[in-house]
Amino acid sequence: MTYCIGLKLEEGLVLMSDTRTNAGLDNVSRFTKMSTWEVGGERAVALLTAGNLSITQGVITRLKHAITDAEEGRTNDDGSEIETLLNAPSMFRVAQIVGETMRDVQERHRKTLEEQGAAADATVLVAGQRNGGQHRLFLIYSAGNFIEASYDTPFFQLGEHKYGKPILDRIITPETPISVALKAAFVSMDSTIRSNLTVGLPLDLAIIRTGQFKIDLKRRIEQEDPDFQRISNEWSDALRNAFESLPEVTTDGASRG
Amino acid sequence: MTYCIGLKLEEGLVLMSDTRTNAGLDNVSRFTKMSTWEVGGERAVALLTAGNLSITQGVITRLKHAITDAEEGRTNDDGSEIETLLNAPSMFRVAQIVGETMRDVQERHRKTLEEQGAAADATVLVAGQRNGGQHRLFLIYSAGNFIEASYDTPFFQLGEHKYGKPILDRIITPETPISVALKAAFVSMDSTIRSNLTVGLPLDLAIIRTGQFKIDLKRRIEQEDPDFQRISNEWSDALRNAFESLPEVTTDGASRG
Repeated sequence: MTYCIGLKLEEGLVLMSDTRTNAGLDNVSRFTKMSTWEVGGERAVALLTAGNLSITQGVITRLKHAITDAEEGRTNDDGSEIETLLNAPSMFRVAQIVGETMRDVQERHRKTLEEQGAAADATVLVAGQRNGGQHRLFLIYSAGNFIEASYDTPFFQLGEHKYGKPILDRIITPETPISVALKAAFVSMDSTIRSNLTVGLPLDLAIIRTGQFKIDLKRRIEQEDPDFQRISNEWSDALRNAFESLPEVTTDGASRG
Repeated sequence: MTYCIGLKLEEGLVLMSDTRTNAGLDNVSRFTKMSTWEVGGERAVALLTAGNLSITQGVITRLKHAITDAEEGRTNDDGSEIETLLNAPSMFRVAQIVGETMRDVQERHRKTLEEQGAAADATVLVAGQRNGGQHRLFLIYSAGNFIEASYDTPFFQLGEHKYGKPILDRIITPETPISVALKAAFVSMDSTIRSNLTVGLPLDLAIIRTGQFKIDLKRRIEQEDPDFQRISNEWSDALRNAFESLPEVTTDGASRG
């Protein structure tokens, strides 16, 4: 499995993903699930992927090939410019391109995969901002359709989302500062990694601050990362103290309900 | 869905279940998922159920009918005594009886259910102690097979287990006192109820203290229950304080990994 988090805050977009993939419990590998692009001062785009790895790699590879083709001056058969994540006129169109690519890859492989009992499902988080537009966060499904994060729902999760959802539910609002949101993302990842073997370090972290049109931070977080270790250890202690501060529960047999 | 917790501690067995069932999001009902029996001073037995409600109700009804039949002096066709949860010679045999009953009910309904696209899966926690034996906790699967809680794994969960697992992972050991374990069970339920609509109040709580051979506490916990409300509110505050006490994460762009 996988665990990816995308937060859409007023201050910007915070993206975090683990790197563990498995084809059965005895076949565990490490692949990054985060891809980022920036066009100096004009736009920043990040994709986070979950699901069937051959499908998501297929989607990312096609999107990259299109960028290379456009950069090298190739055109469509009719002579028109090749549309890519880096020249699309809006983040909405970027999400559409990812959705269309997903649909193409699914069309190519889904039937055969399902005939052999494998799952072809895959999902992608698309995050970014271009100069002239808002910063936006989309969740693209296997069918190529998508939804967008909003004021009411300022975050999306992919993959093993349940363990780490309670802390995000409690902390994340659109007004949450990035520094606080980062802590919540770390805690959410830490809870998931502790409870589920299919999610594992290292992590990838990216931040796209509003109005900067660039990847402000991209960081690989290894097991020995001092920030992650501090958060993980201090959260354990803080959680235990918080727990110990709770009042005792009545066990005298009297119904208080 | 459902969320049930069974804790096997040195001090005794703690059992908690929600009461929400749903056949689709627009068909939500309330059913208890906990059944308890005690034979004064000799044994206490509790069952918690999850999965297809018609299956689990079928299992519980058959077990109850057998008890009634035995109490009223009826016998098997060959004149032998009817074996029930209340006269079985060991908790292990109690678990076997529940497993055999599950297998019979599955045999009767599973094929038809699956032909109509419904899931027949169901699971049961069996907890209890009889005079002369240890207190034990079993998890019975749809096939009637089962596993037992041990020193290394002192708790089982049924149903929507992921949201509420991190706090149990951190707090519960066999040595945890019942008063502390109860708090952890409340917090685990609270986290699950906050994050998943298919788990809901009221809750059922039962405690079987070691060596008492009776249900020491059985309590229905409604929305307005003062203990649950205090735990829920204070946990929210304590969690927020714990979170705020965490160190800031580096966002200066320097890789510290």
